[in-house]
Amino acid sequence: MDRIYAFTLATAFALPAAAFEPLTIVDQGSFAAGGTVIETPGEYDNNAPTEAGQTFHGNHLYAFYQVPQDANPLPLVFWHGAYQSGRSWETTSDGREGFQTMFLRRGYTTYVIDQARRGRAGNSTEAASIEPTPYDQLFFDQFRFGQWPEYFEGVQVDQSEETLNQFFRSVTPNTGPYDPAILADATSALIDRIGPAVLVTHSQAGGPGWLTAIRNPDVKGIVALEPGSGFVFPEDAMPEAMPSAAGTLEAEPIPAEDFVRLTEIPIVIYYGDNIPDEPTEERGKDNWRVRLDMARLWVDAINERGGDATLVHLPEEGITGGTHFLMSDLNNGQIADHIAGWLDAKNLNQ
Amino acid sequence: MDRIYAFTLATAFALPAAAFEPLTIVDQGSFAAGGTVIETPGEYDNNAPTEAGQTFHGNHLYAFYQVPQDANPLPLVFWHGAYQSGRSWETTSDGREGFQTMFLRRGYTTYVIDQARRGRAGNSTEAASIEPTPYDQLFFDQFRFGQWPEYFEGVQVDQSEETLNQFFRSVTPNTGPYDPAILADATSALIDRIGPAVLVTHSQAGGPGWLTAIRNPDVKGIVALEPGSGFVFPEDAMPEAMPSAAGTLEAEPIPAEDFVRLTEIPIVIYYGDNIPDEPTEERGKDNWRVRLDMARLWVDAINERGGDATLVHLPEEGITGGTHFLMSDLNNGQIADHIAGWLDAKNLNQ
Repeated sequence: MDRIYAFTLATAFALPAAAFEPLTIVDQGSFAAGGTVIETPGEYDNNAPTEAGQTFHGNHLYAFYQVPQDANPLPLVFWHGAYQSGRSWETTSDGREGFQTMFLRRGYTTYVIDQARRGRAGNSTEAASIEPTPYDQLFFDQFRFGQWPEYFEGVQVDQSEETLNQFFRSVTPNTGPYDPAILADATSALIDRIGPAVLVTHSQAGGPGWLTAIRNPDVKGIVALEPGSGFVFPEDAMPEAMPSAAGTLEAEPIPAEDFVRLTEIPIVIYYGDNIPDEPTEERGKDNWRVRLDMARLWVDAINERGGDATLVHLPEEGITGGTHFLMSDLNNGQIADHIAGWLDAKNLNQ
Repeated sequence: MDRIYAFTLATAFALPAAAFEPLTIVDQGSFAAGGTVIETPGEYDNNAPTEAGQTFHGNHLYAFYQVPQDANPLPLVFWHGAYQSGRSWETTSDGREGFQTMFLRRGYTTYVIDQARRGRAGNSTEAASIEPTPYDQLFFDQFRFGQWPEYFEGVQVDQSEETLNQFFRSVTPNTGPYDPAILADATSALIDRIGPAVLVTHSQAGGPGWLTAIRNPDVKGIVALEPGSGFVFPEDAMPEAMPSAAGTLEAEPIPAEDFVRLTEIPIVIYYGDNIPDEPTEERGKDNWRVRLDMARLWVDAINERGGDATLVHLPEEGITGGTHFLMSDLNNGQIADHIAGWLDAKNLNQ
């Protein structure tokens, strides 16, 4: 009981966060990378313009970068998940530093992207209809804050109303059809521009992250936080589909020679807490049971082929209460340290 | 001829830009401001979720802020125009520093926003269809880079292919219907959160910028770069509509008592070059002829009522070649200095 009481007190007074330590930036800015151009047939008339003869630039990504003093050679590219933008990595919903600033302090140049057809990279070569989709409660469950409206005991989330409001307002829609190949093309173009780098992916970005590494030898390592889909396997070694209370998770086949590329770089995957070992009817939890299981098979498939993949299930290391948003949980500093330790161990800080 | 030759040489070697001078930041981060919540009737079922009983957060803005050492008390809120996001104020299309960083160096805290229903603030309570709209050539003309495919002589734009590519990729669509009142509500909520501030608006943001000042007494001044629509006038003193080759510009009526608010703060409006005095069939230019004319009437209307509005038509001060994107033109440092001088003169640097 004492521990629970202490935790409650700590969260009650968690805000405002500690003062920001001054940070010297030796470069910052933004640009677009990748993308395509489509053109409407016909001739452009400057003084009576229609779409005829005009072009449209789309399917690129947007990147905002910052460089700290004496930066490590390899930058980190932070890639948000579904319904999110680069904001995932900035200030946490409860107002504390996110990974963007935390890893600047740890000596890393940071690139925070909005993937193609999301956020500031909204131009899509294919049309989309955007409907206001009331998913707040589903997100609360699926991101393992708790079982709406109750938070999980000990969950690493500030439980104030404004924190939840900020979280829900970090949601932003796709502005074109979701297409992992287009996303990977754009991120590969980013890597072409900036040179060798490490990807830090969240959730849905896991899959297009693997695809980017397959496309581009300058992806030197991947940190994947709670990948949720897009587990690619050699087409001759596909695992069984995995049914769950949240639907069936299927692996995705790729040529065996493409899979080899994933055995050539260090990869680490992190999952948080409240993921059951056994099937449950609690949809929000069961969704992650099969993803964690699939991730275990995936890591094995890589390591059996001579690769270097690690799965970190944080509760097994005594780090409890982690949600789907490990990078903005109350203990995100601890998670950042864990990742920084892995980067050090794999010589990716050099 | 000598001058033209020198200019051509200068632009040919304009890139890469001067080295970035290190910058110490004493705070940075992001958050959402304003917005509404809608709720679908019914009861939420955690394990078989539909939209029933779920909420949706939308119509907020997104803000990214940075605070320099020894910051001036009043921050600047940078508000992009149509088809743009906060990226308007970051790195220029040709890779140089934009106003975000330039004004940090001049001692200002900067808030760079994505307005409601745009960019990272994409969640809209009303649906939208997004089509890829091939407008690149129209933009080139309308933003006064030139008459496609020719640039204007002496225009303040780097004419490399990659610069134009970056510019076209700064375009991003609305993710909901355009509604100036919703935009002003969100920005007013931002001001409520951050306290007294100066708005720096671009183009389409001019109109919702005036509305924000009317709503919120903590808007202490406005710098409007090339406002393009939303010129509000007292409903009993409306100017005539202004036809042009690009359509008819109409003023927008507001209650006289609301207009008074605009006489209580210093306001400056900037326009660039290649805006004709007389009607022309060149659509891209004629569009701005009527806007500059309307801005002149607007400034007069404010000053006749005891206000303090200034219109700076840059060529009249010998500053030539300015496009619609004054904040990212080749001489954007000169424009920043001009604005900083106005802020000083109006005691808005205090």
